[in-house]
Amino acid sequence: MGQLTLDYTHALSDVVGPTHGIAPAELDALASASRAALRAVQARRTKDLRWLDLPFQAEVHEKVLDYAARMAGRFQNVVVCGIGGSALGTIAVQQALNSPYHNLGARGPLPRLFVLDNIDPDLIGEFLRQFEPSECLFNVISKSGTTAETTSQFLIFRDALIERLGREAHVEHLCVTTDESKGVMREIVKREGYESFVVPEGVGGRYSVLSPVGLVPLALAGIDIKGVLKGAADMDEICRGDDFYANPAQVYAALQFLMQTKKSKPMSVTFSYSQRLALLADWYAQLLAESIGKRKSRQGRDVFVGPTPVRALGVTDQHSQMQLYTEGPFDKWFTLLSVARSDYSITLPAAYPELEAISYLGGRTLNELFAAERDGARVALTAAQRPSVTFEFPKVDPHAIGQYIQCLEVAVACMGEHYDIDAFDQPGVEAGKVAAYALMGRAGFEQRRAEIESSSPKTRRTV
Amino acid sequence: MGQLTLDYTHALSDVVGPTHGIAPAELDALASASRAALRAVQARRTKDLRWLDLPFQAEVHEKVLDYAARMAGRFQNVVVCGIGGSALGTIAVQQALNSPYHNLGARGPLPRLFVLDNIDPDLIGEFLRQFEPSECLFNVISKSGTTAETTSQFLIFRDALIERLGREAHVEHLCVTTDESKGVMREIVKREGYESFVVPEGVGGRYSVLSPVGLVPLALAGIDIKGVLKGAADMDEICRGDDFYANPAQVYAALQFLMQTKKSKPMSVTFSYSQRLALLADWYAQLLAESIGKRKSRQGRDVFVGPTPVRALGVTDQHSQMQLYTEGPFDKWFTLLSVARSDYSITLPAAYPELEAISYLGGRTLNELFAAERDGARVALTAAQRPSVTFEFPKVDPHAIGQYIQCLEVAVACMGEHYDIDAFDQPGVEAGKVAAYALMGRAGFEQRRAEIESSSPKTRRTV
Repeated sequence: MGQLTLDYTHALSDVVGPTHGIAPAELDALASASRAALRAVQARRTKDLRWLDLPFQAEVHEKVLDYAARMAGRFQNVVVCGIGGSALGTIAVQQALNSPYHNLGARGPLPRLFVLDNIDPDLIGEFLRQFEPSECLFNVISKSGTTAETTSQFLIFRDALIERLGREAHVEHLCVTTDESKGVMREIVKREGYESFVVPEGVGGRYSVLSPVGLVPLALAGIDIKGVLKGAADMDEICRGDDFYANPAQVYAALQFLMQTKKSKPMSVTFSYSQRLALLADWYAQLLAESIGKRKSRQGRDVFVGPTPVRALGVTDQHSQMQLYTEGPFDKWFTLLSVARSDYSITLPAAYPELEAISYLGGRTLNELFAAERDGARVALTAAQRPSVTFEFPKVDPHAIGQYIQCLEVAVACMGEHYDIDAFDQPGVEAGKVAAYALMGRAGFEQRRAEIESSSPKTRRTV
Repeated sequence: MGQLTLDYTHALSDVVGPTHGIAPAELDALASASRAALRAVQARRTKDLRWLDLPFQAEVHEKVLDYAARMAGRFQNVVVCGIGGSALGTIAVQQALNSPYHNLGARGPLPRLFVLDNIDPDLIGEFLRQFEPSECLFNVISKSGTTAETTSQFLIFRDALIERLGREAHVEHLCVTTDESKGVMREIVKREGYESFVVPEGVGGRYSVLSPVGLVPLALAGIDIKGVLKGAADMDEICRGDDFYANPAQVYAALQFLMQTKKSKPMSVTFSYSQRLALLADWYAQLLAESIGKRKSRQGRDVFVGPTPVRALGVTDQHSQMQLYTEGPFDKWFTLLSVARSDYSITLPAAYPELEAISYLGGRTLNELFAAERDGARVALTAAQRPSVTFEFPKVDPHAIGQYIQCLEVAVACMGEHYDIDAFDQPGVEAGKVAAYALMGRAGFEQRRAEIESSSPKTRRTV
């Protein structure tokens, strides 16, 4: 089991130039504030930031694994009904650790895994047309129990199950992950007798992948969750460290803050040079955007801060976004995800010896080409004065994925201290929800509906 | 067949406020420059911007359909070997018009469609492990014929086919889309006798989805390409129009330019309120980023311009990016994709009448909830002074998809005039390619290799 490391060489002024690179002195200057930030975060470990301790909940892990073992071989499909933090971590880890063709190809006795993180009727309708609910285990995930998207899906699939299997037999096709005691889903669990898991106190959605929120579906899909948790536990040890330059979470948080505030870079691009790691960028996009994108400082001042996460995939996006990245505005910094060793090694067959434009590839490996393109991209970014750091994955395995998750969660918590905002709430999500309830005509939202109607534009400009 | 329309009400100052909204007078002021931009673009229709005429190449369309008819039922899988502009359009249209479970579920006699737009060895290795090449038709797409990723895939799959089927029989499992006369892939077509299609002159990769680049794989996968082309042709008619306020391409281009230059919004978010339209945002991301992200003006001055495309999916990203969008910096504008009529209508079953937090959904439709969330999101964005426009799709069908593609391509061409850059080259892609060749040790790139080695940092900072 190798160590995930962060290489920040190409973010520094002596390599990428003083205009867009961070001077070592700037980083030094932030080190003591960073240590204070880390201490502030770690002090809340046993209070409201319980997610820090998720890698160590052995009893919970055993319960999840026991459930997965009992369900093994019983269902063709595992279907997550959840959205946002109830979905993104599972999607990312599944893509990293199972075959990209898991749902399609040979997968032994393992079920397919679907994460239905939308309510587009065309998605849900097609799902119902193509898959038989009685062959599915539905994992309904909502901490509050009131997420309209998730409860809607629950109503639809519960009804389909009861219709096919009857009231009694439908019960074992549902499993609910929600608050321990509060909320409508917990109440329903009690009435129906569904299997259930707990989203613990102090674990917000975007920090929940290592709780039963992610662990249940991942274990059902055959992921080695103990390996992931061990990686997270090992990284947690490192991320507690007071030595700034030995703690990747501290260094990454400080670089993010400096890139935005000193180098005027509002965008943080996660550029995965691994197909398998690509969706970790989506997971991180939620973690970063919801945690740091805030109107109010902790003192209540209007600050309107927050980096915008941008997701890119190498080498694919070299043929899409790279033009902008190297020649456009200097408004981004880059986090490359790099993998030292692939699972496969593929040699390119030699052919057409007299056609140099193709013959130079013969005998080389796809791995060499992939690595050369990644390193070539970094060379091009650096030459264009675009700062980057690289997370080096020894390989894509459960241990490294666990390390990455824990490291980034701690880093974002530290960013919250630097930006001086609350990294654990999401007041801005509420406005859209309330408007949707109002437009749905839900009881109690009549006033908001009237406001929306009276303020909505009288004439439309369309073309 | 309904009409795709652009609603820009919520981008205007009287609705979203004067600080972040465009004043009608500002738009008026740009109208005459916009008409000139459009004329400049349209004047090149028969010269170097031949992509404008792609909807009208009836002979080409017949050849594609004839080929698809001949291949029907012969292969389990169609595999696109292509990247960037050779992949993104196909992926987007396939997702829009086929079932999200096309590759997985019931699809009648149609083949699966895979677009392998990466060379990660773990992706290609898993593909080879899971699928039998002799059941595949490989469509190799590269205009220049020198794209290293694509030629590498060609070498791998050709070798696998010859090994299984022999030299002669492998030929019909390959189909090449490339330049009419130039390049190594055209030379190989002549030698091997592969079926081939032409990427015409004046059609760059990112403007090529309506050429055989996209049409061949889409037709093979059962997409109604004639419907798509008819939509594009109808929109082309509208986009030739000199009346600024009746031409959505002109209005969209002008708004993009004003949002960045007058309202300081470097990011353009495409927020698809349709699972099926989500990957059109990826297609547009390439079109916008490669076309407008430029260092040099047409006069050769350093300008470093270009909006950054950001991709979001409703309702999914309400639980991920919406917090940042409504409370973070005022550095974005939003293009919502909205669908008036879904293919499915799904009624939410009534249950738990005494639990209001869930019973309010009973009897309503998923469609109502989805629409309320979309409209609620727009209300929330507007209340937070975040300007948005909405492309209204009457439904997700071939005609509307064709309209959208043609409209956005013309819009981006017009943006090129406003930004005063060349929207049809991509000089920045070259630097990374050359660096990769150098790092691969390809003949002719020795000097660049030496430069890279001498300039690479001597000490690494890692943590």
